[in-house]
Amino acid sequence: MSERFTTTQIQRLIELNAGEDREKLEFESTEERNRNYKIIEGALVKEHKEKIKKLLEKDRRPLSLQIIRNLESWLFEEGFTQVVTPTMISSSMLEKMTITKDHPLTNQVFWIDSKKCLRPMLAPNLYEVMRDLYKVSKDTVRIFEWGSCFRKESQGAEHMNEFTMLNFVELAGVGEGCQMERLKSLAISAMKAIGIEDYELVTEKSEVYGETLDIVSGELELASGAYGPHFLDSKWGVFEPWVGIGFGIERIAMKLGQYETIKRVGRSTTFLDGSPLSL
Amino acid sequence: MSERFTTTQIQRLIELNAGEDREKLEFESTEERNRNYKIIEGALVKEHKEKIKKLLEKDRRPLSLQIIRNLESWLFEEGFTQVVTPTMISSSMLEKMTITKDHPLTNQVFWIDSKKCLRPMLAPNLYEVMRDLYKVSKDTVRIFEWGSCFRKESQGAEHMNEFTMLNFVELAGVGEGCQMERLKSLAISAMKAIGIEDYELVTEKSEVYGETLDIVSGELELASGAYGPHFLDSKWGVFEPWVGIGFGIERIAMKLGQYETIKRVGRSTTFLDGSPLSL
Repeated sequence: MSERFTTTQIQRLIELNAGEDREKLEFESTEERNRNYKIIEGALVKEHKEKIKKLLEKDRRPLSLQIIRNLESWLFEEGFTQVVTPTMISSSMLEKMTITKDHPLTNQVFWIDSKKCLRPMLAPNLYEVMRDLYKVSKDTVRIFEWGSCFRKESQGAEHMNEFTMLNFVELAGVGEGCQMERLKSLAISAMKAIGIEDYELVTEKSEVYGETLDIVSGELELASGAYGPHFLDSKWGVFEPWVGIGFGIERIAMKLGQYETIKRVGRSTTFLDGSPLSL
Repeated sequence: MSERFTTTQIQRLIELNAGEDREKLEFESTEERNRNYKIIEGALVKEHKEKIKKLLEKDRRPLSLQIIRNLESWLFEEGFTQVVTPTMISSSMLEKMTITKDHPLTNQVFWIDSKKCLRPMLAPNLYEVMRDLYKVSKDTVRIFEWGSCFRKESQGAEHMNEFTMLNFVELAGVGEGCQMERLKSLAISAMKAIGIEDYELVTEKSEVYGETLDIVSGELELASGAYGPHFLDSKWGVFEPWVGIGFGIERIAMKLGQYETIKRVGRSTTFLDGSPLSL
């Protein structure tokens, strides 16, 4: 008779990022199983304790924040300016993104009251700021923001209710017809700054949304780009060509840190930088 | 007969940060008033346009983010590690901070549903993380976080519904009796890192909350420190001495940028780095 780990044991092994290979081991007896569990669990706890000590003594910054640092440095080099906009946005801002009652995203929005919600994306605020800055500068506007966005997700391995986006936009930087080329060049440059080599640029065309560019690694979507003129632009008073890419910071941390679930690298009080805090 | 600026004119002058001296000017005639308004308004718009261009072309980062950068650099030098915790916290976390129905802060909390709210402060999450890290490291824990906190404020000149706090804590760093000395030394060092010289350290004693340390400049409270053993500690499972200071980033930006109202330097789509975007 073959024995497998108990549910409790498996839960702990998952928490410790043991990997499917080890979670699925089979044993000849309960005794052997428990002995092996103890060995594996102990080794993983030791490993995570060492990782946490390294974080406290050496790295000082979780991987997700290091990724943001690297993107920031790259964006400053490329001439972008960092902005900070509100986490709470108005329902009218959502409506301008066509997120009305028919839109699939509606049910995922966290509402504070009938008129205010937590932003599900950075785009609405960036539309406003880039338009106003263009009026002032009458020249190419390059801005970016990073921060929390909120969606009621099913909380699968790749989704969280609160996640971190970094979004840049460049307005009036390149002429009509050159946007996709510019997007691709910025995407390649960003991936270099982050240190990811095995990725694909996936373009898609839609009559409504125009042409989009996704940065995909394996089955994980790391970032998503778009450009204008876009059917939403006139609602925002934007009339120049633009390009923009939004990066899912925790997705990138999953990829770089080889984690199977996103919550390990997200904002949390139970995990820190991939390690569980209950050790 | 003396003429003063109209309400509309004054609103625009306030938006442009004209200063009370200029807002209260008196004129001999309506014509003279309007002529003067045009001159002042024009000069201020030009000034703000130049400020925005400097931000886009040179500084690349609003004052508030520069302050955070300076505090981060200083904290890394002092051996602190940066953490990221959730913006949404549970009602039980609030209760552990004694923010129950009788507490003055209760009415200022933004609720998402009956069990989740937007954090009004960083302390609850930091309590949890520092406790767990101490269990792992069995040594001094130095961590900090910065991010948005939320309170339903009357929205006066010094308050906003969404504001940015940077909070550091040091657990088991100094022994009993030395906490206030350590707090003061860290406060002085932080102010040096930010570049503020004219401030006072104000200590207060309360039977319930223990001894606290505020960093005050003029009438503006820039930061607030506390230490433990504290009456809340046992609820969090914290039993070692600790010290911590929370900085109001926009307050510090008001002080450094000489702005009269906090919303000019806060997260916004109408202001950027002290300047209105409608120019």
